[in-house]
Amino acid sequence: MKPQNIKIVMVGTTHPGNIGAAARAMGNMCFSHLTLVDPQCPVGDIAYARASGANAILDNRETCKDLAQAIADCSCVIAASARRRSLPWPELSPPDMADKLTAMDDTTRIALVFGREHSGLSNEEIQLCNYMVCIPTNPDFSSLNIASAIQVLCYEIFQCQATDESMAVKSPEANDLPVPHAELEGYFEHLQNVLHLTGYLDPQRPGMIMQRLRRLYLRSEVTRNEINILRGMLTAIEKQQR
Amino acid sequence: MKPQNIKIVMVGTTHPGNIGAAARAMGNMCFSHLTLVDPQCPVGDIAYARASGANAILDNRETCKDLAQAIADCSCVIAASARRRSLPWPELSPPDMADKLTAMDDTTRIALVFGREHSGLSNEEIQLCNYMVCIPTNPDFSSLNIASAIQVLCYEIFQCQATDESMAVKSPEANDLPVPHAELEGYFEHLQNVLHLTGYLDPQRPGMIMQRLRRLYLRSEVTRNEINILRGMLTAIEKQQR
Repeated sequence: MKPQNIKIVMVGTTHPGNIGAAARAMGNMCFSHLTLVDPQCPVGDIAYARASGANAILDNRETCKDLAQAIADCSCVIAASARRRSLPWPELSPPDMADKLTAMDDTTRIALVFGREHSGLSNEEIQLCNYMVCIPTNPDFSSLNIASAIQVLCYEIFQCQATDESMAVKSPEANDLPVPHAELEGYFEHLQNVLHLTGYLDPQRPGMIMQRLRRLYLRSEVTRNEINILRGMLTAIEKQQR
Repeated sequence: MKPQNIKIVMVGTTHPGNIGAAARAMGNMCFSHLTLVDPQCPVGDIAYARASGANAILDNRETCKDLAQAIADCSCVIAASARRRSLPWPELSPPDMADKLTAMDDTTRIALVFGREHSGLSNEEIQLCNYMVCIPTNPDFSSLNIASAIQVLCYEIFQCQATDESMAVKSPEANDLPVPHAELEGYFEHLQNVLHLTGYLDPQRPGMIMQRLRRLYLRSEVTRNEINILRGMLTAIEKQQR
């Protein structure tokens, strides 16, 4: 894992102070790539004041219209979120997340995603992600400030990497690395079409089947070799149907 | 150690927003005892706005004229600080600090001391403390916001204590647990049959396809719900082939 290949993604942020404070927290922990998804506030004097010198991070920020666009090039996407009741998503503790990311190949692109100040991430947004990470908090006063949450997670990764540094991992072949998000989405679309074609999935009553399949394949960090096999299977089925 | 017996001590703070943000960070991690030493700003609307509901912590704060007074009743005093060149003080990493405090007796009174926004703690103040704790940071942009530093250290202690307690994680439903190995083998057999049926897999020249699919699903720890979906898909394909 390389800190340059980790982007911090803030979705629908409403307060410019939080964007500035996030940039400062990132800079303190050697992260520099900030992506704003559909920001609800300007990034001006208030943000720069709170950034307290981390101006380059704000200057070089990327802005996207939605989360899917922001993470299209990422092979590992982790949502910072409170625990979900319905359809729980694979969950990591912050230290486990840090261990996992630190062990990843240097070329892997990673996103850490943070939701809106008041409403967090939507279920649809969570379902774009491979994992959730939950920061343990006081159950009676659990809502962390978003920049504080970024501080805690960036700190965990930075600290873990500092301890881990000398452990150079041999790079796997490109085809054995997890594919970027956009390719996985292409697979999901192909899969859904074939499930309609075979009659397994009723477009009128889809239930939770696609969500469950998403969860399975997202947590599996599917490689290019595997995607090729999975899509090859779908294509073989389509051919026979014709 | 009891969280109620840990006080967070802020020395000479100049910005009321930082005092409010510190209260929020403390509340998120189950700490409630805030002590201000010689504060350089009022604790008013700005502080309460940033406390975001942690009003009781601000209401019940203690104010002292100097650090010696603030820590008089504490048996263990830890200063959050950057590393010192002259007269290095015994230093703990944040996780080591958390381990140390968590192991302490419930009756021990503890103080975590944070310095001024721009100048930190004086040498005389550091020398009142048992230990220093240094949060690892980017050497080129090392100055953490004070409330962020409080957030990180309170998080470390809270997390260490939470892991130390019974770790009562709610058990998932049986259908959301990984299936026993035999069921996964049943799935692999079914999958191989369907791959032969669709012509994707040539029984004479199978290559590595099944091995790669095994590796994918074995590492995914497939649940019963997921196996049911995966087998349902195969059955739907078989039906159409007949």
